[in-house]
Amino acid sequence: MAVYTDVSAEALEVFLTRYPLGRALSFKGIAEGVENSNFLLETEAGRFILTLYERRVKADDLPFFLALMAWLADHGFPSAAPVADRDGALLGELEGRPAAIAAFLPGLSVKTPTRGQCQEAGFGLAWLHDAAEGFPGRRANALGQTSWAPLFAPLADAAEALAPGLARTVARDLSEIEAGWPDGLPEGIVHADYFPDNVFFVDGRFAGAIDFYFAARDMRAYDLAVALNAWAFSPSGAFDPARARALLAGYQSRRPLSPAEREALPVLSRGAAMRFFLTRLNDWGSTPPGSLVRPKDPLEYVRKLDAHRAGLGLERLVGLERLGG
Amino acid sequence: MAVYTDVSAEALEVFLTRYPLGRALSFKGIAEGVENSNFLLETEAGRFILTLYERRVKADDLPFFLALMAWLADHGFPSAAPVADRDGALLGELEGRPAAIAAFLPGLSVKTPTRGQCQEAGFGLAWLHDAAEGFPGRRANALGQTSWAPLFAPLADAAEALAPGLARTVARDLSEIEAGWPDGLPEGIVHADYFPDNVFFVDGRFAGAIDFYFAARDMRAYDLAVALNAWAFSPSGAFDPARARALLAGYQSRRPLSPAEREALPVLSRGAAMRFFLTRLNDWGSTPPGSLVRPKDPLEYVRKLDAHRAGLGLERLVGLERLGG
Repeated sequence: MAVYTDVSAEALEVFLTRYPLGRALSFKGIAEGVENSNFLLETEAGRFILTLYERRVKADDLPFFLALMAWLADHGFPSAAPVADRDGALLGELEGRPAAIAAFLPGLSVKTPTRGQCQEAGFGLAWLHDAAEGFPGRRANALGQTSWAPLFAPLADAAEALAPGLARTVARDLSEIEAGWPDGLPEGIVHADYFPDNVFFVDGRFAGAIDFYFAARDMRAYDLAVALNAWAFSPSGAFDPARARALLAGYQSRRPLSPAEREALPVLSRGAAMRFFLTRLNDWGSTPPGSLVRPKDPLEYVRKLDAHRAGLGLERLVGLERLGG
Repeated sequence: MAVYTDVSAEALEVFLTRYPLGRALSFKGIAEGVENSNFLLETEAGRFILTLYERRVKADDLPFFLALMAWLADHGFPSAAPVADRDGALLGELEGRPAAIAAFLPGLSVKTPTRGQCQEAGFGLAWLHDAAEGFPGRRANALGQTSWAPLFAPLADAAEALAPGLARTVARDLSEIEAGWPDGLPEGIVHADYFPDNVFFVDGRFAGAIDFYFAARDMRAYDLAVALNAWAFSPSGAFDPARARALLAGYQSRRPLSPAEREALPVLSRGAAMRFFLTRLNDWGSTPPGSLVRPKDPLEYVRKLDAHRAGLGLERLVGLERLGG
């Protein structure tokens, strides 16, 4: 849940005079997104989401994120289009925070996706990659592969505290991931946080994606690898080949992977698990007691790293899709 | 903010089969209400608020609250009408909690009401009292005057810790309030928590009230006294006669107070301040560190008790309205 900053009706009224949206009819803080404060705003012009960007999002990155959201919506992808103010600006300021208004995107996210939803989600991710083609914005992936060893260095003790021997295992994982990391795979804009809570369905069909605040330029197959970790494990932490197959099939139904991408999928997935393990480990130690946000358990990703180390058999799954497709 | 219980899309889908509302199109946890978990639910039939009742609301009281909400909406008062399921029940169960769906009520609440909003709020409260006339449900006010001394008894040390000498002052206040407490004033259904965050405006006009989970049978003028404490003090804690006058004028524009009610208003207001001081003092000590809800500061009501002890001049304010009206 996330409403870190209160917005008074008075401040909202002043803010809205900058937009061609008429009067506010309803305004409610919503528990969506972890990094920012989000509000459902209804005006005479319709329904919108108002976001106040809190300190964890770099203000310098906001123009990139908002331009990307606008681009995707312009290119037919179901995402929340930012609303420009009367001067054409997508970014404003409210209650001392950078703030933006975006169109309301219908749909529901799921906690435990079915195979059918995994397939739809895979299709949606490929659609996102297609729709972002040609987007001129540039942002390197600040949480890409080269960031992981430096991120881990000060966290070795925390890993050891989590499970004895874990620091050494992670260090070895990092070396192996670095040694096997691919080069030259197709790049483009990646969502980089394509988890079930960021994907909407209506009636079981893919209905859109939200929360582009980790988006960057990186390998597209890495984005699929992030999704694989997020969608294809059971709640207990076990890999679910059936859901993985559905996700991969859905993705490839719109954008078939190249042989090199297929071959790289195991190491990309292992790396993606490492990325989320590291940021969760970092947040686990640094979230003050009494914080409104409960940090996510890094042990979930320790179990995923174990599974990747043992091998998921992804080559076979992705190969089957190739034969089947 | 308040989303204490997660509701999965899967559980929601099953729950909704009991209602004639069609498929869910959108579902978001909202930061509204302090005691319960609230969700904005959009279905093919429109927009609704889904509430899961958490442990602080007594399950036995829920039929009273829901029947009252239904009665008020049926009698033209702008409040959220509960939606009956296919068997006619207003109360269901979801994720192990009592749960109800109510119509969406448009409007915005304000933090710092203007005089005009105070007047509208007063009018709305009198409207609520009128609309509840004849409602057959019965619920005694569990936080009424007779509850205050027993509530304070175990909290004397906590009061003393808050400010040296406060325990003794409060004990004397309690005696004086008890001695002056009126009898025989017009009774009816009172909201009993008519604070700015529970009142909606659209375009500066009263648009409805929410959160009836303290409603009970009590003196109507006591409800106005609760509102006076909530609406007619500045953020710094100073009494604002202009806003008090506006609130009283708005109320009396729909339901003029009797001479006995006017005379009782000072002690009723002092008692209302005591009631919120006591529950805040209780919550202040008993909220565990790390809780998602920050307890409200009891010192705000210490200052209000001080102001009541010194006298607000309410007799004059309410008298002026009588002459003016």
